Amino acid sequence: MPEPVICGIGYTDFIIRVEEFHGYRSPGILLGGFMLDAALHDVGTTPYLNVVTETVVCLPDAVQLLTPCTFGNGFLQIFDWGKFALTAYNRMTLSGVRVWLNHDRLLRYKLIRDWFERSDHTKKKPPFEPLAQEILKAGKELVIHRPVRLHRALKDTQPVPTGNCPECGESYPLHHGPTCPSCQGNAYYNYEAANHESRYISEKK
Amino acid sequence: MPEPVICGIGYTDFIIRVEEFHGYRSPGILLGGFMLDAALHDVGTTPYLNVVTETVVCLPDAVQLLTPCTFGNGFLQIFDWGKFALTAYNRMTLSGVRVWLNHDRLLRYKLIRDWFERSDHTKKKPPFEPLAQEILKAGKELVIHRPVRLHRALKDTQPVPTGNCPECGESYPLHHGPTCPSCQGNAYYNYEAANHESRYISEKK
Repeated sequence: MPEPVICGIGYTDFIIRVEEFHGYRSPGILLGGFMLDAALHDVGTTPYLNVVTETVVCLPDAVQLLTPCTFGNGFLQIFDWGKFALTAYNRMTLSGVRVWLNHDRLLRYKLIRDWFERSDHTKKKPPFEPLAQEILKAGKELVIHRPVRLHRALKDTQPVPTGNCPECGESYPLHHGPTCPSCQGNAYYNYEAANHESRYISEKK
Repeated sequence: MPEPVICGIGYTDFIIRVEEFHGYRSPGILLGGFMLDAALHDVGTTPYLNVVTETVVCLPDAVQLLTPCTFGNGFLQIFDWGKFALTAYNRMTLSGVRVWLNHDRLLRYKLIRDWFERSDHTKKKPPFEPLAQEILKAGKELVIHRPVRLHRALKDTQPVPTGNCPECGESYPLHHGPTCPSCQGNAYYNYEAANHESRYISEKK
């Protein structure tokens, strides 16, 4: 039997790439591979590919691994909706394809169902390989995809005036208000001890 | 003169990796490399590395390229604050290092200053190599880093009850309300024409 191919990559190579980038073998990225395969097939070849994922879990890494779209280059947008779905689209035409899972069919596959309904990834992870084999078997049967048109481009490309925050002195976009988000009380950290900038510079220079 | 090394990677190899992942040579990722170098040096070797970036631009890709932390594996968090800063920390101890740019020193470097103050990446991109040479020269002199302690872990690992949305039928976290975020009016798309799921399956099977 020939090796399964996901997004043009043989299964063995696919899993190695997933481990390298994501840190471990991920059923969600394997399933995401089938979803992207369906979406990219319908969107066709374009230099203007953008992708939106509707969850922060796994799917963003499938996109970053299998397409030219990354979070940092702005061609991947992520909504924290907890929905295992994505849309691939042409950012010039705003036409694309939304892909998600067929929940009824998913119920027929015990290992996939148990893994998917765990969903919160706090319980013990199931062994990868039996689950992966079930995903390879079910594969595209689980994937629903429909053509969509986006309401608007999701990448913000308008100029953003910036200035220095009067409290911390750091540069920030002025639309946040008179001080930066951190100085407005959103800081996730407290500073400890003194600035030891000079130590690093003298050590490493 | 020996080749500059950023996060343990020689400059030539560094730029190739940036092009492969990010799509083009990015001054922000080069500068991000120096910032991460400083942060990781101080945090030290740990299997519990997490990173937070305070901008969606470039820095997330520097982190995903140079550390095991990715958006999809949950060890990279991103705040859309427009601040060119990041914090690397140990998720077990919540101790870490926040890194940002020394704005006064940055003003001394014409190409870096012009690029940084453009900030909104809508204007024409400056030629990469002269700017990169200035970044390599300035490098760690631009980087300010201070030890911090996080208020709390940023990765949410609590169980999230899910159910199927009564409108679209898709699985979503119930804390969003009686319907999923998309059916609550946040959808970024409209469906076009009919479901052509069967076509893809019959074509590709």
